[in-house]
Amino acid sequence: MSAIDLNCDLGESFGAYRIGMDECVVPEITSANIACGFHAGDPLVMKKTVELCRTYGVSAGAHPGYRDLQGFGRRNMKVSCEEVEADIIYQVGALKAFCDGAGVELHHVKPHGALYNMAGKDYDLAMAICRGIRAVDPSLKILALSGSQMIRAAKEAGICAVSEVFADRAYQPDGSLVPRTQEGAMITDEEEAIKRVVRMATEGKVTAIDGSDISICADSVCVHGDGEKALVFVKKIRKALTAAGVELRRF
Amino acid sequence: MSAIDLNCDLGESFGAYRIGMDECVVPEITSANIACGFHAGDPLVMKKTVELCRTYGVSAGAHPGYRDLQGFGRRNMKVSCEEVEADIIYQVGALKAFCDGAGVELHHVKPHGALYNMAGKDYDLAMAICRGIRAVDPSLKILALSGSQMIRAAKEAGICAVSEVFADRAYQPDGSLVPRTQEGAMITDEEEAIKRVVRMATEGKVTAIDGSDISICADSVCVHGDGEKALVFVKKIRKALTAAGVELRRF
Amino acid sequence: MSAIDLNCDLGESFGAYRIGMDECVVPEITSANIACGFHAGDPLVMKKTVELCRTYGVSAGAHPGYRDLQGFGRRNMKVSCEEVEADIIYQVGALKAFCDGAGVELHHVKPHGALYNMAGKDYDLAMAICRGIRAVDPSLKILALSGSQMIRAAKEAGICAVSEVFADRAYQPDGSLVPRTQEGAMITDEEEAIKRVVRMATEGKVTAIDGSDISICADSVCVHGDGEKALVFVKKIRKALTAAGVELRRF
Amino acid sequence: MSAIDLNCDLGESFGAYRIGMDECVVPEITSANIACGFHAGDPLVMKKTVELCRTYGVSAGAHPGYRDLQGFGRRNMKVSCEEVEADIIYQVGALKAFCDGAGVELHHVKPHGALYNMAGKDYDLAMAICRGIRAVDPSLKILALSGSQMIRAAKEAGICAVSEVFADRAYQPDGSLVPRTQEGAMITDEEEAIKRVVRMATEGKVTAIDGSDISICADSVCVHGDGEKALVFVKKIRKALTAAGVELRRF
Repeated sequence: MSAIDLNCDLGESFGAYRIGMDECVVPEITSANIACGFHAGDPLVMKKTVELCRTYGVSAGAHPGYRDLQGFGRRNMKVSCEEVEADIIYQVGALKAFCDGAGVELHHVKPHGALYNMAGKDYDLAMAICRGIRAVDPSLKILALSGSQMIRAAKEAGICAVSEVFADRAYQPDGSLVPRTQEGAMITDEEEAIKRVVRMATEGKVTAIDGSDISICADSVCVHGDGEKALVFVKKIRKALTAAGVELRRF
Repeated sequence: MSAIDLNCDLGESFGAYRIGMDECVVPEITSANIACGFHAGDPLVMKKTVELCRTYGVSAGAHPGYRDLQGFGRRNMKVSCEEVEADIIYQVGALKAFCDGAGVELHHVKPHGALYNMAGKDYDLAMAICRGIRAVDPSLKILALSGSQMIRAAKEAGICAVSEVFADRAYQPDGSLVPRTQEGAMITDEEEAIKRVVRMATEGKVTAIDGSDISICADSVCVHGDGEKALVFVKKIRKALTAAGVELRRF
Repeated sequence: MSAIDLNCDLGESFGAYRIGMDECVVPEITSANIACGFHAGDPLVMKKTVELCRTYGVSAGAHPGYRDLQGFGRRNMKVSCEEVEADIIYQVGALKAFCDGAGVELHHVKPHGALYNMAGKDYDLAMAICRGIRAVDPSLKILALSGSQMIRAAKEAGICAVSEVFADRAYQPDGSLVPRTQEGAMITDEEEAIKRVVRMATEGKVTAIDGSDISICADSVCVHGDGEKALVFVKKIRKALTAAGVELRRF
Repeated sequence: MSAIDLNCDLGESFGAYRIGMDECVVPEITSANIACGFHAGDPLVMKKTVELCRTYGVSAGAHPGYRDLQGFGRRNMKVSCEEVEADIIYQVGALKAFCDGAGVELHHVKPHGALYNMAGKDYDLAMAICRGIRAVDPSLKILALSGSQMIRAAKEAGICAVSEVFADRAYQPDGSLVPRTQEGAMITDEEEAIKRVVRMATEGKVTAIDGSDISICADSVCVHGDGEKALVFVKKIRKALTAAGVELRRF
């Protein structure tokens, strides 16, 4: 029987600012990526989000990003590998402390936004992230884009790498994502998106943008919890996966 | 034979900004309080400072403060106990990760600046700090003002509390510091300051501002490394303590 | 015919974070207090909010606060008068530039949150704010708590001071607000709150918490736009004031 | 008689952190580029730096940068043109307010660090900066790299552009700087650097890295005030320029 993990970014609120419907989405997922205070999140939000994961038995992961609250970590920044390594240790260490305090195991790390995208294509940057993770705890898993440099670096560094796929994104024949700037990058038909996820989970295959079938490693699928519509989609994707005999299970 | 610890705030640089002569003062001290990125310090500075402590066999401690880089954590802030607890977990956890990565034991926590002063007088705030420390690691020691509410809260919380004294500050008959705004608050004569420290270390006594002799617990004396003059003073105080048969030893 | 101004805090969003229903509330008010980037707001939000004020003919005012985004400027901070003066010049100057760029007159300044409350009671702090305002433009008006030290300092400094009243707060016999920690501080009955505002606008009187009638200067009433309920209340208060023959007019 | 301006970045301290020997260098220069709080500087530092410029009759300019204090604005960031325009209005407006308060004319704008470099090569980014400057005050001059896209955009936008040259950098045959990563990028011989500046000021020519003589527009030369060595160099360059009959005059 095949199995897949459902991961979602959580704990993105900051002070008086609220983002995400964390309480609603957490019962639907199996893994949470918790913001660590650089691009989103603050210490109190991190504490409460870890406790929320404990309540629902959801895996708690760190979601470190660039130090860019105004840009929500989505703006590319030219940060040296030495700084990135230290930034990762800092953020992952901070989240681990909340996990330790709550009696929860810190389970994985997923880089956020621009850091995720840049490390997916830049082996040296990906390796700096791996060094940071290893410094905190070499048994941490890393959640990264299927087929990316991040996966390659993790393997090289001896870190367990877990491949993430996206329901709403088109793939190129080489397994990389079609850039958002290109036509057809987004899968806008919800039913098609769900069918693609089910097929990735059961067959390990997806149709690329050129119509060819390609192999894809789908350990976890990324879902969103930042609105009513996103929540409905998470519930639909759960139902479709279960109906197809795919077990929803943390990686 | 009596013994005392010499502690100093380190790792206060931030990005391109340099504060402190860390490389020069670290061979002279036995414990370091390392800034954790809220009032001073950044991830790369923290990493290098932990490594510097490892090189010289100096105890590495966390030095968490208010989130106020512009004010260097010296401005009083009305932060809720719930937030302070989370801020402590975040900062201490981040520093612990650098220690783990460097194979160094995180040894103690010393609150910084306004947080240190406010928690010295406010039991509830002090207890929030203790809860934060316990969440990260209940075996961490806390370095706090001799006779303060911080010491009282630590004992209540089952945290090992270590009493800090100051060479350059006058004491009130009840063992608290004479406020800086009051005349005579600072001991400006260097020789007198050194004599007072030696007496606190050997006899456990100091002359209060009213001329009376009071008992004081002197586990560690706070020294500074932020200038040439401060460095010379550290060397003098070391020499005087050694000459008086006091062992310089981490607490 | 009596007249009153309706003021509301606007432009409190930051990056990806949204606070307030600015587009909905702006047609209902006569003056806007626009966050200046320290406790809330960012440059792009400021620019768009000034343009929104221009569209609806609403007075644009600066809403400077403490540099505390995490605490939304609501946490008391011990900032020196010299620093507060400079912080005011910085924030008000930044907003003025957006007004200049949009061809909008910068109309007034209203300190935010903890700064508003602290300056209401601390003459020296209030005077530092006045010095900051005068440095930018001595013709700027200041919107402050009726009967506060801020009003007193403004008069002393030759700045036109406008008195603000609150619909949902109880007053003490001396005209100051009943602290939120005290019972009866909030006027929770909506109808009563509206009646009180109408009476303040038409008679210049309000019933204090001890039952006595006191005089109050009501140039402007503070309303909120941060939710559906708040919006409904603004519309009700407008209707009631208009029905009572009170003109809604920027001060 | 030929003339040149000497410009220097000032006001880069932040809170307790000191960078630069502003008091020593300001008597030697004719124009100051004052940090505006995003990459360096804080409101109190800005206020004091503007007052320092007034005292010495030095032109006060704004030195806006990316919002990256940790990276001192030297890390490339992918910020949208819309955001850059707003960031410029905010920073330049804030500095203008300090100038207004001190009775000093705001004279020019020079983008800082990564923003300077990126806008030198990216016309759209340069034009966004121009739009920001125009919004604050269309009569402001812009100080930019000789021959860059920034100069081109300024001309297009109707902003007076002033060409900056560097004493310690090699030039390519097309007038652009040799990238620092390339060999020979830095002119390390002090005497040669000074001779080059004198020739740029008197003849409008410089020898490019390939040995060819090229024309260069040298309205202002950038000097540094961040150390004893830098100060000595500024004094030497002044002396050499004066000896060559070049007047030191703000642009």
